[in-house]
Amino acid sequence: MSAIMCPGFKAAGIASGLKKNGQKDLGLIYSEVPAKVAGVFTKNRVKAAPVLLDMELVKSGSCQAIIVNSGNANCCTGEQGLRDAKTMARLTASELGIPNELVFVASTGVIGEPLPIEKIKTGVPDLVRSLQPKGIPDLARSIMTTDSVPKTALAQGVVEGKTFTVAGVAKGAGMIRPDMATMLCFVFTDVEAPPDILKETLVKAADRSFNRITIDGDTSTNDTVMVMANGLSGAVIGSLDHKNNFQKVLDEIFLNLAKQLVKDGEGVTKLVELVVRGAVSDSDARKVADTVAHSPLVKTSFFGEDANWGRIVGAVGRAGAKVNPDNIDVYFDDVQMVKAGMGCGKDVEAEATKVLCKSEFVVTIDLNMGRGSDLIYTCDFSVDYVRINADYRS
Amino acid sequence: MSAIMCPGFKAAGIASGLKKNGQKDLGLIYSEVPAKVAGVFTKNRVKAAPVLLDMELVKSGSCQAIIVNSGNANCCTGEQGLRDAKTMARLTASELGIPNELVFVASTGVIGEPLPIEKIKTGVPDLVRSLQPKGIPDLARSIMTTDSVPKTALAQGVVEGKTFTVAGVAKGAGMIRPDMATMLCFVFTDVEAPPDILKETLVKAADRSFNRITIDGDTSTNDTVMVMANGLSGAVIGSLDHKNNFQKVLDEIFLNLAKQLVKDGEGVTKLVELVVRGAVSDSDARKVADTVAHSPLVKTSFFGEDANWGRIVGAVGRAGAKVNPDNIDVYFDDVQMVKAGMGCGKDVEAEATKVLCKSEFVVTIDLNMGRGSDLIYTCDFSVDYVRINADYRS
Repeated sequence: MSAIMCPGFKAAGIASGLKKNGQKDLGLIYSEVPAKVAGVFTKNRVKAAPVLLDMELVKSGSCQAIIVNSGNANCCTGEQGLRDAKTMARLTASELGIPNELVFVASTGVIGEPLPIEKIKTGVPDLVRSLQPKGIPDLARSIMTTDSVPKTALAQGVVEGKTFTVAGVAKGAGMIRPDMATMLCFVFTDVEAPPDILKETLVKAADRSFNRITIDGDTSTNDTVMVMANGLSGAVIGSLDHKNNFQKVLDEIFLNLAKQLVKDGEGVTKLVELVVRGAVSDSDARKVADTVAHSPLVKTSFFGEDANWGRIVGAVGRAGAKVNPDNIDVYFDDVQMVKAGMGCGKDVEAEATKVLCKSEFVVTIDLNMGRGSDLIYTCDFSVDYVRINADYRS
Repeated sequence: MSAIMCPGFKAAGIASGLKKNGQKDLGLIYSEVPAKVAGVFTKNRVKAAPVLLDMELVKSGSCQAIIVNSGNANCCTGEQGLRDAKTMARLTASELGIPNELVFVASTGVIGEPLPIEKIKTGVPDLVRSLQPKGIPDLARSIMTTDSVPKTALAQGVVEGKTFTVAGVAKGAGMIRPDMATMLCFVFTDVEAPPDILKETLVKAADRSFNRITIDGDTSTNDTVMVMANGLSGAVIGSLDHKNNFQKVLDEIFLNLAKQLVKDGEGVTKLVELVVRGAVSDSDARKVADTVAHSPLVKTSFFGEDANWGRIVGAVGRAGAKVNPDNIDVYFDDVQMVKAGMGCGKDVEAEATKVLCKSEFVVTIDLNMGRGSDLIYTCDFSVDYVRINADYRS
């Protein structure tokens, strides 16, 4: 695979002392020219200070740099938190020699502790000096919290004979829920596109990826997804054809990053593609997918590699969707485990158990009621999930 | 504490071979005279065969016996399952010498495997012979699945100078959710009351107890709560005063049993009383309580005895209720950990951590927005919860 780079963008990631273990904790992305920008942010009513700042800044549609820290979420930190977020932006802007309002801010980590702004102040000059075209993987590393690996993705497309590049980084391993997104995802591209088209394609891509994944059902106060487009490829996203073209590449990047997030979910050992079909409506299918994907009993049985389909049928029944218990079929990959609401027997169960022993598989629930369908990526619920989250701050 | 008995009732619990470990798995309650009955059943669209049977039988308002098995839920078992449930009732009725339609049935255990009806057939005569006034604890033991202890409760009241007794048994350690109830709860009393008054008081008592507890957010396909009243005390529940009197005793029994269920939840080490107040409405308070009580991140932090209040505030924010982040106060028992959306510092945190080290404590969330309030009993989420549920069928 080629190096993760995008023309006109430089990135960096350094250790500024925010993380006790000395790992990278301060990251920066910088575009040589001001870029167009679009973003979606957490729907949580409790929003971190940098999210509040970015939601204002994004209205201008322009952005040239994003500074990100891990190790502290700068959330529930009141007026001081907002001042600190603005200070981060101002210092970065001054070091880069660009206007304050072109610098966005993101934070991730523990909620409710004051941001150690002095450490960041000390780190920024070093961070800016470290910027380089091949710095995106460093950025990816600097935004990790409980992630075990950095997440990056790269794809290219062509419009009117002009090749464009899309590169992305993401972090997030817990506190992920379909109704929003990952904790942090930043995507950089050299297409030329107005902010409204960026926003439209961003929202669609997020809905097909980050809004389709779940680990533990919690939503972060800091969730942020942003796309920066600096136009340097000369590929202009004008016509509907161009838009579809760009959308396809963006979808690919987002889905790639979203799957990486689930696989690296806290304590996750299985990536499960959960398909619901035959519902009366898509929204009914969504209810069923959402309930099954979040059921602790279903998720622990995935971890136990136990074809305990009764828990799946039980979760289907309480989803609040129109269901006829005698119509339900359930498949693990191609193995039909439940037919018309009843188990297919011990022989089939042995086959189904083989599927469950894989690290990735598909669970299909067919309600046989109509044409509604939905898809969610979920995971198992392991002993390590609890261990990680019981000890997170110690 | 006095023996768990209720005048005119006999009970029994035996081992019939349904449980592989040779524990008691078949139980019976029997009233010397036909009793009035009321019940509430699972709202899950997937209902076990005995639930479907009881929902028909309860319309008559009369019941003289309930036979219960553990080790198999008789759910997702199709037509054969319904025939098996009716066979259980018929055999019991014949052995007792009472009409079939006065015998109710309940089952709990694994979903989707055929009920081993032959074992039950063999067991029923022995079960009936074992009936005795002091048999209620045996019944409580016979309905256990992953429960670690049997659950019984006893209380008395007086109307018009006549003392009445209420005794209850319950089981359930996982698959418990506020929108319904425990898996199984049977309450026996010697008051005289028509079925409609029984139903009314039962629903109220369930709403104040079983509908206020949560362990893992899953709802069973077999949830059943029934009250039998045989009238033998001569205490007649006629006037409003009597009803309030009876309600108070029933509430006490239900809340007692409900708390026992949470404490004995799978892998539970903490019983947490979660109080939400200051919401714009009671329904908003309910949303917040429900979201916080089910958040895996909050529940694992209880297990870790970590005063990670940021996770609580994060869950409040995503509950979909009207919330001003800058108004939120959070208390652990009497220790105020969050004031106006911000942490109260390290000294207070040390105090809060002491509270979290207790096996029972109260978490109070004050939204400071209005007068809506709610209360849920919840618990922590432990490494053992996952272990138990990953291995349940092995």
